[in-house]
Amino acid sequence: MTDRFLRACRREATDRTPVWFMRQAGRYQPEYRALRERYSLLDLCRTPELCAQVTLLPVTQLGVDAAILFSDITLPLLGLGVPFEIVEGTGPVIGRPVRTEADIEALRVIDPERDVPFVPEAIRLIRQEAPVPLIGFAGAPFTLASYLIEGRGSRDLPATKRMLHGAPTLWARLMARLTEATLAYLRAQITAGVQAVQLFDSWVGALSPRDYEAAVLPSMRRLFGALQTTGIPTIHFGVGTAGLLPLMAGAGGDIIGVDWRIRLGDAWARIRQAGSQTGIMGNLDPAVLLAPFEAVDAASREILADAGGRRGHIFNLGHGVLPETPVDYLRRLVDLVHEVSAGPAASTIGAASPAERASGGRGIGS
Amino acid sequence: MTDRFLRACRREATDRTPVWFMRQAGRYQPEYRALRERYSLLDLCRTPELCAQVTLLPVTQLGVDAAILFSDITLPLLGLGVPFEIVEGTGPVIGRPVRTEADIEALRVIDPERDVPFVPEAIRLIRQEAPVPLIGFAGAPFTLASYLIEGRGSRDLPATKRMLHGAPTLWARLMARLTEATLAYLRAQITAGVQAVQLFDSWVGALSPRDYEAAVLPSMRRLFGALQTTGIPTIHFGVGTAGLLPLMAGAGGDIIGVDWRIRLGDAWARIRQAGSQTGIMGNLDPAVLLAPFEAVDAASREILADAGGRRGHIFNLGHGVLPETPVDYLRRLVDLVHEVSAGPAASTIGAASPAERASGGRGIGS
Repeated sequence: MTDRFLRACRREATDRTPVWFMRQAGRYQPEYRALRERYSLLDLCRTPELCAQVTLLPVTQLGVDAAILFSDITLPLLGLGVPFEIVEGTGPVIGRPVRTEADIEALRVIDPERDVPFVPEAIRLIRQEAPVPLIGFAGAPFTLASYLIEGRGSRDLPATKRMLHGAPTLWARLMARLTEATLAYLRAQITAGVQAVQLFDSWVGALSPRDYEAAVLPSMRRLFGALQTTGIPTIHFGVGTAGLLPLMAGAGGDIIGVDWRIRLGDAWARIRQAGSQTGIMGNLDPAVLLAPFEAVDAASREILADAGGRRGHIFNLGHGVLPETPVDYLRRLVDLVHEVSAGPAASTIGAASPAERASGGRGIGS
Repeated sequence: MTDRFLRACRREATDRTPVWFMRQAGRYQPEYRALRERYSLLDLCRTPELCAQVTLLPVTQLGVDAAILFSDITLPLLGLGVPFEIVEGTGPVIGRPVRTEADIEALRVIDPERDVPFVPEAIRLIRQEAPVPLIGFAGAPFTLASYLIEGRGSRDLPATKRMLHGAPTLWARLMARLTEATLAYLRAQITAGVQAVQLFDSWVGALSPRDYEAAVLPSMRRLFGALQTTGIPTIHFGVGTAGLLPLMAGAGGDIIGVDWRIRLGDAWARIRQAGSQTGIMGNLDPAVLLAPFEAVDAASREILADAGGRRGHIFNLGHGVLPETPVDYLRRLVDLVHEVSAGPAASTIGAASPAERASGGRGIGS
């Protein structure tokens, strides 16, 4: 098994820059689409054999350096006792959003082995097969709180912000509950065998640094502090966080995941200026993969040049793979990252060789 | 007439920090909602008397230091010959999106006095009445191009990015056309009497700095360069631009408008580091106005403290006023900004006085 992903998480030297993709199991794969014709998203999550199959497919198909547990950010809601459904094209919809003190008090304490037993079971299955490290994941408490309060995806998060500003004590109670639930959920994943965990704070970019500091940072600090005692690496990811990076790095995580809205080198400088020594994951715009591969080539080389061979860089997209992405492009991108970052080739950064562009082989295990 | 807004645009000393609000004419006002029951958005834009009425209402109602022409980002499409309709709850929808060379060649050259004569006419009416400077506006070429290509609002802008990466020559041609159209449109507004102009690049935050630099910056530089010769101040606004600020400041504008996703002081430092001397407009999260006023008070004082009395700060929200915003809160916010920034009161930053919180008067003209 290649350990370059875990070595990068620990900011150790690696033979190549490790690469994996958020939502690397997804609609861009014909095999995934075929499965989704027969099973719902939750069915796939709830059936360990299917979950393992979907999780492992991109590993063999693309040659990425890490697998990520196929799951959904809403699964802990099953443990919290919040009914929801996943509506095609809309995402998770919660019939009765959580907005009052009584709603918050009614949240159950999650017991992963009781509430989501299929998650640890899938993890054990995957670990038997996976040729690369397995990443567990959970939504971060803020993003989870936003889902619970808004009841569905929302651009402005008006109800969330209203509670955060107007009822800070209530907000703190909800965040404390969700922090402990997330911790219990991630601990169960770690016990079952995941080798790293990623916290997805996908919506946190809606907040001002001031609000992040008051309303989110304490929970993230508690979460990462507790995870640190488990000894496994943590990735702290958010979208639209260029202005939040110094605070996020201070909150915790061995690796900070950034989207493409900031140059990787700029993100690195901002994190270092804040006194943090974390590594960085990112940060190709997933939409570049909809253009001819020359564009992917050029943008990816620039990211690698920005990373400058520093320890602790994990190559990824800035957010999930888009459904229209050609499978072959992702495969070629994995090769490109491995080739460009492999010693001598690193000096050719900026000039794509035709051989690299035409390469169809796989970087891992070969 | 108070000239503190224009003085701040020129980075001259002001007696108070000027304040106005994006979408200060809008659904949060009962009077506006009443008009919208009788007229469509485009009807209001196309009828100079109504346009003037809607533009001026928030000036008298809130006591803001600037009026902004009531208009819509899509109006130049009338001149470009691109049919569209505004769909309630969705926004502008273009039946036949602009995606091919033929589509781009078919765009007409805009002649504002012929295509949108009601705009200069409304400006002349407003100038007769307005007790404060009038800001003209246009969507920036990138945001306009995205509308044209996607055909409607879009989160990921897949078709736009596909053209930008996959057909850079076509993209450049479209941007050149839209830049000239925007310039003609703004020149007509300036001739009619607007005293400053704001470019809204509302969607530019979807781009990586690399893509911004290659695909947007040249047009913005051309645009601001040409506007500079008119002698009137320019505001360059975008959403989600924390990672783009150094480039945006380099592109042009006397004032850079930022949203709340970065601390005002941080934005200022980033712009100065890039060697630019622009002022800054911003940056209260509009959603804070949905919480009790104490939250508005605290967040606004922090922004003013961050600005530190520097010349060139114009107080605004980080984006448009939300429909659920209480009118009275905006009025109180105007007072607060004026009071806190007025000399001695500035030293009490951070401590809201009950008198200020209870104040119902208006800061302007009093």
